[in-house]
Amino acid sequence: MEQPQQPAEPEAEDTAPADTAAAGTAATDPSGRTTPSPARADRPPLRVGVVGYAFMGAAHSQGWRTAGRVFDLPRRPVLSVVCGRDRAAVRAAADRHGWADTETDWRALIARDDVDLVDICTPGDSHAEIALAALAAGKHVLCEKPLANTVAEAEAMTRAAEEAYGRGQMAMVGFNYRRVPATALARRMVAAGRLGTLRHVRVAYLQDWLVDPGFPLTWRLRRELAGSGSLGDLGAHIVDLAQHLAGERLAGVSALTETFVRERPLPGGTGSGLNAVAAGGTGTVTVDDAALFTGRFASGALASFEATRYATGRKNALRLELNGERGSLAFDLERLNELWFHDGTDPGAEAGFRRILVTEPDHPYLDAWWPPGHGLGYEHTFVHQARDLVHAVAEGRLPDPSFADGLQVQRVLAAVEESAEKNSVYTPIAD
Amino acid sequence: MEQPQQPAEPEAEDTAPADTAAAGTAATDPSGRTTPSPARADRPPLRVGVVGYAFMGAAHSQGWRTAGRVFDLPRRPVLSVVCGRDRAAVRAAADRHGWADTETDWRALIARDDVDLVDICTPGDSHAEIALAALAAGKHVLCEKPLANTVAEAEAMTRAAEEAYGRGQMAMVGFNYRRVPATALARRMVAAGRLGTLRHVRVAYLQDWLVDPGFPLTWRLRRELAGSGSLGDLGAHIVDLAQHLAGERLAGVSALTETFVRERPLPGGTGSGLNAVAAGGTGTVTVDDAALFTGRFASGALASFEATRYATGRKNALRLELNGERGSLAFDLERLNELWFHDGTDPGAEAGFRRILVTEPDHPYLDAWWPPGHGLGYEHTFVHQARDLVHAVAEGRLPDPSFADGLQVQRVLAAVEESAEKNSVYTPIAD
Amino acid sequence: MEQPQQPAEPEAEDTAPADTAAAGTAATDPSGRTTPSPARADRPPLRVGVVGYAFMGAAHSQGWRTAGRVFDLPRRPVLSVVCGRDRAAVRAAADRHGWADTETDWRALIARDDVDLVDICTPGDSHAEIALAALAAGKHVLCEKPLANTVAEAEAMTRAAEEAYGRGQMAMVGFNYRRVPATALARRMVAAGRLGTLRHVRVAYLQDWLVDPGFPLTWRLRRELAGSGSLGDLGAHIVDLAQHLAGERLAGVSALTETFVRERPLPGGTGSGLNAVAAGGTGTVTVDDAALFTGRFASGALASFEATRYATGRKNALRLELNGERGSLAFDLERLNELWFHDGTDPGAEAGFRRILVTEPDHPYLDAWWPPGHGLGYEHTFVHQARDLVHAVAEGRLPDPSFADGLQVQRVLAAVEESAEKNSVYTPIAD
Amino acid sequence: MEQPQQPAEPEAEDTAPADTAAAGTAATDPSGRTTPSPARADRPPLRVGVVGYAFMGAAHSQGWRTAGRVFDLPRRPVLSVVCGRDRAAVRAAADRHGWADTETDWRALIARDDVDLVDICTPGDSHAEIALAALAAGKHVLCEKPLANTVAEAEAMTRAAEEAYGRGQMAMVGFNYRRVPATALARRMVAAGRLGTLRHVRVAYLQDWLVDPGFPLTWRLRRELAGSGSLGDLGAHIVDLAQHLAGERLAGVSALTETFVRERPLPGGTGSGLNAVAAGGTGTVTVDDAALFTGRFASGALASFEATRYATGRKNALRLELNGERGSLAFDLERLNELWFHDGTDPGAEAGFRRILVTEPDHPYLDAWWPPGHGLGYEHTFVHQARDLVHAVAEGRLPDPSFADGLQVQRVLAAVEESAEKNSVYTPIAD
Repeated sequence: MEQPQQPAEPEAEDTAPADTAAAGTAATDPSGRTTPSPARADRPPLRVGVVGYAFMGAAHSQGWRTAGRVFDLPRRPVLSVVCGRDRAAVRAAADRHGWADTETDWRALIARDDVDLVDICTPGDSHAEIALAALAAGKHVLCEKPLANTVAEAEAMTRAAEEAYGRGQMAMVGFNYRRVPATALARRMVAAGRLGTLRHVRVAYLQDWLVDPGFPLTWRLRRELAGSGSLGDLGAHIVDLAQHLAGERLAGVSALTETFVRERPLPGGTGSGLNAVAAGGTGTVTVDDAALFTGRFASGALASFEATRYATGRKNALRLELNGERGSLAFDLERLNELWFHDGTDPGAEAGFRRILVTEPDHPYLDAWWPPGHGLGYEHTFVHQARDLVHAVAEGRLPDPSFADGLQVQRVLAAVEESAEKNSVYTPIAD
Repeated sequence: MEQPQQPAEPEAEDTAPADTAAAGTAATDPSGRTTPSPARADRPPLRVGVVGYAFMGAAHSQGWRTAGRVFDLPRRPVLSVVCGRDRAAVRAAADRHGWADTETDWRALIARDDVDLVDICTPGDSHAEIALAALAAGKHVLCEKPLANTVAEAEAMTRAAEEAYGRGQMAMVGFNYRRVPATALARRMVAAGRLGTLRHVRVAYLQDWLVDPGFPLTWRLRRELAGSGSLGDLGAHIVDLAQHLAGERLAGVSALTETFVRERPLPGGTGSGLNAVAAGGTGTVTVDDAALFTGRFASGALASFEATRYATGRKNALRLELNGERGSLAFDLERLNELWFHDGTDPGAEAGFRRILVTEPDHPYLDAWWPPGHGLGYEHTFVHQARDLVHAVAEGRLPDPSFADGLQVQRVLAAVEESAEKNSVYTPIAD
Repeated sequence: MEQPQQPAEPEAEDTAPADTAAAGTAATDPSGRTTPSPARADRPPLRVGVVGYAFMGAAHSQGWRTAGRVFDLPRRPVLSVVCGRDRAAVRAAADRHGWADTETDWRALIARDDVDLVDICTPGDSHAEIALAALAAGKHVLCEKPLANTVAEAEAMTRAAEEAYGRGQMAMVGFNYRRVPATALARRMVAAGRLGTLRHVRVAYLQDWLVDPGFPLTWRLRRELAGSGSLGDLGAHIVDLAQHLAGERLAGVSALTETFVRERPLPGGTGSGLNAVAAGGTGTVTVDDAALFTGRFASGALASFEATRYATGRKNALRLELNGERGSLAFDLERLNELWFHDGTDPGAEAGFRRILVTEPDHPYLDAWWPPGHGLGYEHTFVHQARDLVHAVAEGRLPDPSFADGLQVQRVLAAVEESAEKNSVYTPIAD
Repeated sequence: MEQPQQPAEPEAEDTAPADTAAAGTAATDPSGRTTPSPARADRPPLRVGVVGYAFMGAAHSQGWRTAGRVFDLPRRPVLSVVCGRDRAAVRAAADRHGWADTETDWRALIARDDVDLVDICTPGDSHAEIALAALAAGKHVLCEKPLANTVAEAEAMTRAAEEAYGRGQMAMVGFNYRRVPATALARRMVAAGRLGTLRHVRVAYLQDWLVDPGFPLTWRLRRELAGSGSLGDLGAHIVDLAQHLAGERLAGVSALTETFVRERPLPGGTGSGLNAVAAGGTGTVTVDDAALFTGRFASGALASFEATRYATGRKNALRLELNGERGSLAFDLERLNELWFHDGTDPGAEAGFRRILVTEPDHPYLDAWWPPGHGLGYEHTFVHQARDLVHAVAEGRLPDPSFADGLQVQRVLAAVEESAEKNSVYTPIAD
């Protein structure tokens, strides 16, 4: 390809992502397969309709828009419809995020023929209803975590997803942190036996946006909408990630939860999310501010969990460490391009935790990205999620994590709440 | 917007990026201005034609595609045409990166009416010719760094850019590392006097992809194409960034350069960039492998520079530190979401370098992105570059860095080479 | 003092520790007092007899030898007698560590007139008997942690210590990690209100010397000698430190403990401690390998604790973090010269965890040591412990931590064991 | 040794330093030799007389006092005499640091029969005169760095040391940073070929105690006493350490030096070192404030050096990194218990810089210290220096670094100054 002898006809820079050179003539997926593939424009579309358009909606939009540009996907994601109640706002979101059309009723979105996959980015209280309807309507589904606000809802969703799978429909729950290259590498290393028998898993998810008692009572602080507080928002992530990396499930938990600030000002009409603004009056926080729990894995390994929004100065510190008989792994989401590995089989005088910069072409997802050392960001977890779901849909494989995985996480969270209510007594996880 | 009383009609998640809520009805740009703005679809397009489609082409594509989705831009970037010599390959790149059309001759691209801005992502030896033609044809220009392979070329380009500016055309050189939020914050802090009188600037740009003597002789190792080696590739970045952050220019330099491995295998027909593959025969490396230089700033501050591709284990370690009478700043591109600041005015017992996680809404570029702690990646520097250039074009402001800035960097590099040839003697930078 | 005009008569280097210049003519203690003090040789001795001479005995020896050389103490520590059962071994230890005389029966040591203070460095099962005898014999006492193997023993010791205090005898328990300058600074900052209302305390003490199932069954793994395993050895340290830094006590705990490896080879005749060697046969581990517990402080802050010897790659990682409404502190014993502080009142755009290098003259204990940046090590905690105890003895002040503090830690450990036995149920700490 | 069956007769703690158990009956030195050795009290003394008693005098005192307590030395260091001009001050220093006697004239110290080794801790301008006299008087000599203020002095000292070596006298220069366990490990790894062909050595020694223009004009800022500024004080350390670790010598250098603040207040009568206090009037700084230089090693590797006292927030940051074809090493004196190693032969997907906590028994010097993870401090470099010199004296081996090594460093510093005076021209190092 390189013909420097003819500089009058300039050549593109050659330090390209691994699969660039071959793009359009062959697919380079993680399996190493390089069979010819059709041009993207000729591949069948996967038309997405998203419900919700704020933080998660924006992140998913980036994921759907980018996945097919970076990865060589078997189907071409199309940003078809975005749905929200406020007509002007959803119109603006469509314009901003690049969705072709809008709806103001999610039922209308589900009813459309030009939607193949429904992507649910609403608060947890509506997940079950929308997902059940979407599956009933023959759509594939991507549902944000936590899967639902109750175990019963999650069970119904899982049953529906299993039936739908029999009809060729795929349903995935959005535990996007499995798709950080560093955590995916960690999973690969654990699965390859690099840690040996697991002894300890410790995970904390620390944020600090509730430290100020003047921060208003947004929907995330109301049980009827959010289901729970830090537990469902942050705890769901770390329970899923811990089990995923360990490759096994929790058998039981013992928990403490706390609501530090019980009354907060009501939110005003403008501003939302972390930019919410207080208005007149106060209301009662009905969810946990923090949840601490310990647990036992099926293998006997011990686990420690902490989820809080009161860790002053910690912005998005999902930190995990696994210790096994042969090695250890450590990760911090605030430095998401790094995985720390201690190889217990190294000679003692040269052993140490090594900082693996997870940007090499043989790291998960990385063959399609930039040269070594050119790190990725938070949003790329959604690109990878979209990539993996498109593959699952195109290949008829059960997505990972499935709704059943989401249900199991829900059962862990339910056991946490039960233990917290019962004076921290050790509470087995229901099967 | 939030109406949790009506859960049957679900609301989007509310932890949205700062300007999401208002999107479509008002622009929230860094100036804080929130005047109504038209829907994106109604804004005038800025039609981009890119020459080159490999590493830089892919990165620029992401930049152009994303900028208008995240930021509220006055003009709407459109990925119109991509150009490369090999018809099949450029067709594949267009398909992959989302460009509407292709050309195989950059002159044809420049001649098109549906191209407003020419984005030059080719090796340095063709920058001048393409840029001069594009400016002559009335186009705006974005040119990858280094601006050119020689000072003479850069001078011609700068003259042309200045004339074109008089005709309302904008020309920018692609020093994208100014647009990492952390470096932009560093610049803001220096400009605000947080460091006081500057004493030291030390910068190193360390990579390791040439450590293996079997790595082939790609175009980057040939003077006639690349102009220089580590110096032009990595050194250009750190010279620009150091001067930009310091807010002043180098007065002179003293330099050592070295080519550690002088003969390398010729590259084979497939594979490119860091994935290049060796074929039969060997050729001579005609550029520097590493360049070390010290210098003096106009103010008397001392500077130390190192650019190398032989720093085993360092993948993209652009590390800088500035020490001033009142404080210090430190940065490492391998951890690009962090800026370290030592406030010399803190009480001694509580002073220390603090790790600022540059993900807060009042950090540069961050009001349009994710909540605190949800970091960005390398590619977003190109999103920010596109954003800033669109603003410059729309508002008729000279882009920063201009071709004149690129020329000045070229003069520093020339002085480095001159000093290295003259036994390291201190060599003033030409004005 | 400095007379550089007369270089023929050389002057000592002048970058001296803060109080060097004044040594011998004035005391510079932390209070800032600089009254004249007598030469060290003229100060009354404090004659120490130590029971036990291995790891802790060696560390205490360094502490007693060094304290009076670095700090300006009111009494002069004298290394009088060391005691151990094996005559040859104790003789060798005396020779090595610099003790003037030896005994092979601790009762004989206590009976000596030339011993003012008995320093107990034996396993926990003998602490009570020796301490009670020493106090009865009119000696001051320093007792290694944990204070005792049972609450009952600790209660008896505390009663005896309180009575002895009335007679002018001092008794201290050896929680030396309070005396790392960084933790002492943390305590000072918490006490000054820099964290505001406390929300979270998380502490882990991670070691890895039991990872190998072939490591032998030393006394530390036998309940009848060690009392407990990680809990008493590591857990005692972190319970004390957490409460000390928080400035308040735990109200209750919920706990899980585990013994991962239940049978281990018996130790051979040579080698000891971490260098113990396995011999024939196996025996049963009767203590915990790891203990995890959560708890509530009196104020409502939540706490998380983990003590383990199975954290592969973690050698002495006592890590703690405190989050309060106004700020946070973090510490890792593997980097003991550093304290990390997040000032929540800093402007958001410049806030971050700052690494305070705790080597400044206005940091605790540091006015007597080296210039900034010249760090201390583990052993200096024992120097500081000796310093503080000598002051307490000379000034008739109750040492801190007292036996009562040691007893309270023992009660926490007992509650941890009780909770672990009772299915992790939340267990209040007895007063 | 352990007889837990008889708890009434308590046993010492068993997690002892490696050689504790055998102390008194056998020596366990780094060679692994374990022949019986006499009790310390029976070994021949090595009587030390030290000239100077401030910062370095205090550090050396700790070294001499501790070395024989931790290591099993062939001769027993005795702190015999300390010398200083001011009778009261030297008397106080003797009392504080534990020296048996005092002198006020270094000639008297050298003349004493009860001094075997003269330890020179004075400013550089008196090193040569004292060392020459001591060697002439048949004493062993330890001389603080830099060896002298001029190459001529250093040459005379080296000649005298070589002659004295023929008479069985040893002379060592005090480059104590070779004796940080981490740097000693680095040397061992380089010597074992773990880095392969060396490409880069970059070293900076950053302090900040001159940032304040009001800091007074102490002797360290006057050429006639200190010889040079940062260059001799900090630069000497890093030149020696870089060459020592690389295992080869610099061939030439190119340098820039600068004095940022040329007039400073004169120091007052009290306070010294970093605690010096300004008095009336000002004087001229006659040494460099900062020195930057690049160089070439004999092998062709490139080197970068920086020494400054103006790096705000850096207290004692001696940072070095070596990059070789097979691996890299990195170190920072502010975290002196850590060595970072990148093994270039690791599989790419698992490679990374690993943090070796240099506290394992098979690390240099560590078999005599504490269990893993229990770090050492700055002062222990002097303990190790004393240990190594005692061995050299007892075994008649040339100490390392010798005066010849100190002379060679002096020649590098001279070349730096010459280059700085000659417009940074590359200046070969004289042989």
